[in-house]
Amino acid sequence: MLIPFPLKSALAGLLVLTTSVTWADELASETKQQIQTIKDKALNDDLSFEIIESLTTEVGPRMVGTPAEKASVKWAVNKMKALGFDKVWTEESEATLWERGTLDAQITAPYPQKVKALALGNSVGTGGETVSAEVVAFDNLEALKAAPADSLDNKIAFVTYQMERHRDGHGYGKAVGARVSGASEAAKKGAVGFIMRSVGTDTNRFAHTGVQMYQDDVKKIPAIALSNPDADLMEAMLTRDEPVTFSITMDNADTKGKTTTIANVIGEVTGSTYPDQVVTLGAHLDSWDVGTGAVDDGIGVGITLAAGHYLSQLEERPERTLRVILFAAEEIGLHGAKDYVKKHRDEMDNHVIGAEWDFGNGKIYELAPGVSQQALDDMRAFAQLLAPLGVEMASTNNAKGQSDMSALGNAGQPAVNFNPDGSDYFDFHHTENDTLDKVDKAALKTNTAIYSMFALFATDSGVDFRK
Amino acid sequence: MLIPFPLKSALAGLLVLTTSVTWADELASETKQQIQTIKDKALNDDLSFEIIESLTTEVGPRMVGTPAEKASVKWAVNKMKALGFDKVWTEESEATLWERGTLDAQITAPYPQKVKALALGNSVGTGGETVSAEVVAFDNLEALKAAPADSLDNKIAFVTYQMERHRDGHGYGKAVGARVSGASEAAKKGAVGFIMRSVGTDTNRFAHTGVQMYQDDVKKIPAIALSNPDADLMEAMLTRDEPVTFSITMDNADTKGKTTTIANVIGEVTGSTYPDQVVTLGAHLDSWDVGTGAVDDGIGVGITLAAGHYLSQLEERPERTLRVILFAAEEIGLHGAKDYVKKHRDEMDNHVIGAEWDFGNGKIYELAPGVSQQALDDMRAFAQLLAPLGVEMASTNNAKGQSDMSALGNAGQPAVNFNPDGSDYFDFHHTENDTLDKVDKAALKTNTAIYSMFALFATDSGVDFRK
Repeated sequence: MLIPFPLKSALAGLLVLTTSVTWADELASETKQQIQTIKDKALNDDLSFEIIESLTTEVGPRMVGTPAEKASVKWAVNKMKALGFDKVWTEESEATLWERGTLDAQITAPYPQKVKALALGNSVGTGGETVSAEVVAFDNLEALKAAPADSLDNKIAFVTYQMERHRDGHGYGKAVGARVSGASEAAKKGAVGFIMRSVGTDTNRFAHTGVQMYQDDVKKIPAIALSNPDADLMEAMLTRDEPVTFSITMDNADTKGKTTTIANVIGEVTGSTYPDQVVTLGAHLDSWDVGTGAVDDGIGVGITLAAGHYLSQLEERPERTLRVILFAAEEIGLHGAKDYVKKHRDEMDNHVIGAEWDFGNGKIYELAPGVSQQALDDMRAFAQLLAPLGVEMASTNNAKGQSDMSALGNAGQPAVNFNPDGSDYFDFHHTENDTLDKVDKAALKTNTAIYSMFALFATDSGVDFRK
Repeated sequence: MLIPFPLKSALAGLLVLTTSVTWADELASETKQQIQTIKDKALNDDLSFEIIESLTTEVGPRMVGTPAEKASVKWAVNKMKALGFDKVWTEESEATLWERGTLDAQITAPYPQKVKALALGNSVGTGGETVSAEVVAFDNLEALKAAPADSLDNKIAFVTYQMERHRDGHGYGKAVGARVSGASEAAKKGAVGFIMRSVGTDTNRFAHTGVQMYQDDVKKIPAIALSNPDADLMEAMLTRDEPVTFSITMDNADTKGKTTTIANVIGEVTGSTYPDQVVTLGAHLDSWDVGTGAVDDGIGVGITLAAGHYLSQLEERPERTLRVILFAAEEIGLHGAKDYVKKHRDEMDNHVIGAEWDFGNGKIYELAPGVSQQALDDMRAFAQLLAPLGVEMASTNNAKGQSDMSALGNAGQPAVNFNPDGSDYFDFHHTENDTLDKVDKAALKTNTAIYSMFALFATDSGVDFRK
């Protein structure tokens, strides 16, 4: 049980009326003390981990369109209520449906070996047949695009690009293009199948799935990712003098034109003074189907729900409303976030600031704002409170929000990105290996503290973040 | 290409006649120089890695009874010939056959989730049915054995014991009993299925297979291992108040009474002076079916074949014969090694010493002898040559040889165990994740050098290792 602790003072309520002085100037000592208190609470509590444990144990993988995804929505509603949110509701919409089938992927010559592979999201199956053809390798998507027309007739294209490991995860951007559009680019040259080295930094024998998008008017061909060791194996075979042939047998369902109902789950700790002014914390509730989605994005669910709980346990509600949004269908294209913006377009001016957690396991090292000029001093003052936790403030001021939250950012909501060390994020991302044991409990406590501190700062400081 | 280098001297030939002085006393400077030369050769060569690459790429997994196992025998014969062995032959025998089928393993209540699991070797299937029952957990094999009679009627037993990580791998001995005999112990209490946490030190979502043995006159029940994260998941569910039920659907073939032909592959670098005196280096050629067997025991194949090659490239053959034995069917019970002892019982007195490599990836830190008292000084002198590589000599003198080689040790062959850092061995052992990228190239070079140095020392020093 959490013990409520005093936060608000009469003075705090005056702040939003005082536009000529900043939060940093006026309220430093008292509000800083309150933020320190919520920090200590979070640093000495296992709540965010317990939430992730509950989600991964009681629901597990929760891919869009599966019974477990529906179960996750119920789980989230119940969890928010149990955690003391004032209002909890769901917002439904429709998303395209895709259903993974079984996959048999083999190198058939010169040395037959089965490989570990996963269909990329949205991939067609092989229609009850086996697609079997010679493999042609490309160093990257650009090389595939540069292949002559018809040069891949009755071939399977194989992109060998190995994702780079970086703290800020920017290797993902360089690698993911092949996943998203490689199949159609290969099909344009006549290929009958598309294979890629997984977008991942690990050397475990897990393939990394993830969404791919067929281009209109291009033949849809089966698209799969190999685990890094299996991509190594195929490359080793390609160094021999004989042709390498590969077969794919895959029975993904034909879901063309079908949709499925998805639901954002939203919980509020309602503001005492300015309930219409909304601070958002976001994470996505859906996951891929292969792991239990502990890291992606169970951690985000844990952090944001814990922050909401800590605010709900204060003696008085903060002035503004904290809205925790567990977005639906992030993995297949930010569908829940886009729907949120559509449904809430008229209230976007009241969305004063937002932050998402959807980048895994590492400890936050940077606060990157995307706020009004006049709020920057306040943001710097807040960042100083995070400095003992190893967080620096970025010199840029153009953050739009991570993943889902970028949709709200594009609709005008100011944002903060809390950037964590993402060095190991793509070791587990979109694999069977995304399980509870991968959660770094120490980093999780620190990050939960930072989000809780931010939630309190943003809801109760009166700072005008809007540009 | 390797360049032959001079090794032998006329003086060296005299040594075996000189029983009153030791190799350490007499031949120090010249033979040490020769051993240094073969050390430098191995430390600056990729041969052992290239051999592992060839085996894992061109053959891959090679479980007893599979076509790939037959292919591995051909591969080994050809590779030995290509590497310059003087004689290469195979020795066939029969081993029991077991064939893995498909497996569907699920927690069915209170929160349905599929889990990652593998059948244990020799496990029966579920005969076209699904075995589904409530799970009863035990901390370890002893706790299972202590369960009251009939207390597991229509239950599935689950042993949760987590293997410990140690440099010398002794955690394996403490964990593997449940794997070998857990199913029959559970069946004695009435259980209809046996589940265990994998014998492994990793947190990856791979189950570790390995052999299990049914006891006579005990009902054979399906036996599977869960990946460590899935064992965590099941334990998490067991902390809730509701019963946990589990289902196993597994179609391992009914191979009762069937055998399959196996073959040891043997290559010799024939001794110049005492060809009947045999120094053996061993590794096993077979592997489990799930990974490519790079670490277990491709590394052993690479090290021992490279050592043989280096000896074959000397200007003159060493005095004694080096015999590299790639044993068959180690994984399912040292069948090849046992057959070797049976076939060569009359020559065991001429087996002057042996060493096996079947313990993975780590750098050797210890030479543990099992030799005659009179040979210990020579062994110490040899160990001093290894000291710059970080190897110390153990104070014990009771080594029998690793895995296969223990069968020869029990038949009277002296042995040396080269003990490596096995801290990470059981991260990959018997999993899909045992692939080429897991091979530590730097440690491999050092270990190849040590085995090559040992092969030269043992074949050309005239030391009488026999007790």
